[in-house]
Amino acid sequence: MFKLLKQEGAARLGEFVTPHGTIKTPVFMNVATAAAIKGGVSAEDLEQLGTQVMLCNTYHLHLRPNDKVVHNMGGLQKFTTWNGPILTDSGGFQVFSLSALRKINEEGVTFASHLDGHKIFMGPEESMRIQSNLASTIAMAFDECVENPAEYDYSKKSCERTFRWLVRCQKEMAKLNEHPDTINKKQMLFGINQGCTYEDLRIQHMKDIAPLGLDGYAIGGLAVGEPAPEMYRIIEAVEPWMPKDKPRYLMGVGTPVNILEAVHRGVDFFDCVMPSRNARHGHLFTSQGIINIHNAKYINDDSPLDPECDCPLCRRYSRSYIRHLLCANEMLAMRLAVQHNLRFYNKLMEDIRQALEEGRFESFYREKREIYGVRI
Amino acid sequence: MFKLLKQEGAARLGEFVTPHGTIKTPVFMNVATAAAIKGGVSAEDLEQLGTQVMLCNTYHLHLRPNDKVVHNMGGLQKFTTWNGPILTDSGGFQVFSLSALRKINEEGVTFASHLDGHKIFMGPEESMRIQSNLASTIAMAFDECVENPAEYDYSKKSCERTFRWLVRCQKEMAKLNEHPDTINKKQMLFGINQGCTYEDLRIQHMKDIAPLGLDGYAIGGLAVGEPAPEMYRIIEAVEPWMPKDKPRYLMGVGTPVNILEAVHRGVDFFDCVMPSRNARHGHLFTSQGIINIHNAKYINDDSPLDPECDCPLCRRYSRSYIRHLLCANEMLAMRLAVQHNLRFYNKLMEDIRQALEEGRFESFYREKREIYGVRI
Repeated sequence: MFKLLKQEGAARLGEFVTPHGTIKTPVFMNVATAAAIKGGVSAEDLEQLGTQVMLCNTYHLHLRPNDKVVHNMGGLQKFTTWNGPILTDSGGFQVFSLSALRKINEEGVTFASHLDGHKIFMGPEESMRIQSNLASTIAMAFDECVENPAEYDYSKKSCERTFRWLVRCQKEMAKLNEHPDTINKKQMLFGINQGCTYEDLRIQHMKDIAPLGLDGYAIGGLAVGEPAPEMYRIIEAVEPWMPKDKPRYLMGVGTPVNILEAVHRGVDFFDCVMPSRNARHGHLFTSQGIINIHNAKYINDDSPLDPECDCPLCRRYSRSYIRHLLCANEMLAMRLAVQHNLRFYNKLMEDIRQALEEGRFESFYREKREIYGVRI
Repeated sequence: MFKLLKQEGAARLGEFVTPHGTIKTPVFMNVATAAAIKGGVSAEDLEQLGTQVMLCNTYHLHLRPNDKVVHNMGGLQKFTTWNGPILTDSGGFQVFSLSALRKINEEGVTFASHLDGHKIFMGPEESMRIQSNLASTIAMAFDECVENPAEYDYSKKSCERTFRWLVRCQKEMAKLNEHPDTINKKQMLFGINQGCTYEDLRIQHMKDIAPLGLDGYAIGGLAVGEPAPEMYRIIEAVEPWMPKDKPRYLMGVGTPVNILEAVHRGVDFFDCVMPSRNARHGHLFTSQGIINIHNAKYINDDSPLDPECDCPLCRRYSRSYIRHLLCANEMLAMRLAVQHNLRFYNKLMEDIRQALEEGRFESFYREKREIYGVRI
């Protein structure tokens, strides 16, 4: 399924063939939490922003509208009209970050919905069934997201349980993919490496899950508040133990510089709410660095936000107009700004792939990491 | 400037030539209060929804970003990138409905900004200068909007003052249109008929303002809470006194049925926040009547909202999806719903014009007024 086309140092150019189309890697997945990108951006828009993969959240969709509704409507592709690949997370991260009154045991987790407080049980089988109803292209294994920093002993115990859960996920998905009512009978499964910031646990866990022959492998439990060098250290520790012939996904990362650094260390898949969330607050990524469009110096600035960008905002509107819309709290501001930041991220990945293609990723990486994080 | 093409009873088919393009009447203007349609709808979108005229609010734009900024940016057309005709209201209605601590005298009105409370003075000259800075196609005269019901004596005095203000508006605009810094030197002026619900005041006022030879005449001070039959009665009373060779604009109206009734009584121009405001609450106008998409019966409904509609929502998404997005408070719901309702209104006007063109408006009106107001 995964074809490694080129490699430069640890950085990889690849192709991942899925039942819903081929994904060129490295790739940044665009986050559509509740089956829509925040900021009024539709599936139709994503096609124009060069998006390859849409990511939806299992926890949110289970709560609302409920995965059975999505199943009735023919799965997420038909529901959202997004025809490309879709990745669903397992719900695990939200169970641990959004819900109250969690109780975890070997079976799974009991928790209270953050919407209305009603009690829900979710374990590996439930997560797989929900994701099968959602009919995503790629399902993520159900894991425990341990908060950083965590005690070594607890981290070890949690890792071992997450491994047993992964085996159950794999078994359940095999069953579901045989079921006559299943919409996507070729649903893929990615396993998730855990182990907090302990290199030995990370490596042991990776050694345990690699032989399961999953469709891809993620590094989870990072980008949850630890310093970036800590994250890079863990990637470097675990990467040599990840299968070379499978895509690697660093969950929930990150800034453009984080992505450059992780590609440089051998990662292929990314996702993050940062481009859409920051956009809604006027933090816009450009080829020259980060702009806070609220700044008064843009009041009478009739130039485009980023002359090098081909997004709907930069092609047509001025800095003055987008600043006014944001100050007036107009939804159009959110929409245009989110489209811009998503386009910036998607274009960053295109540029990374082209640099890899042309064997000049190292110089691209060195140049851009000095620019993309600077506030101008 | 205004060419009456056909007439059926009092209903008129016409064309109004402006410096920014020809407007086919009857027309519904789409309200972009702060230089953007609420709900994340852009100038680019309006082109696709069949919008003819964008309406912006002088009061809001004077407060934020300030009309001088818009002037610096080349006027509203360049600022918003909407290349068609733009009508700006005078600010009068918002001065009386939004601001606090109003003090009115012969010169104008002193009031406090609803944003930060700072004191502002606006009279006929100020309103004209602001609208000239905004560089709209059509400016509205500055008038007093008297609350309904109003005392006869106050209404009469107010009418007379509004007449004197109109003369000052006309004089100021003539001066501004000669000024070298003026962006749109062919800015047009519409006068506004007032007189509350007193027919004799309405008629006298209309008789007073008709000889001024303005570019168009509006009926103001209606649709402010009075019953619809009251509004129709006033239109019928004042219409015979309105110049036949000028467009007539019923301000702030209304529902699809209100529009049908007013066209039937000889009105050419309309505007209202209803399509966009109602859309944001899930009230959607369709060819079969009004739908509240929150209704549980749409949860598993994969049909388009209105199979007869060609808007971005109906062309691509299901009732189930739009219902989910609205319940989840996703901006995409607002955007799609607003686009739908605006398209419904714009299409209604297209259908009205075609019926007039083909000499069958009377039967169209009788059929549609029984359908478009019904909740289904």
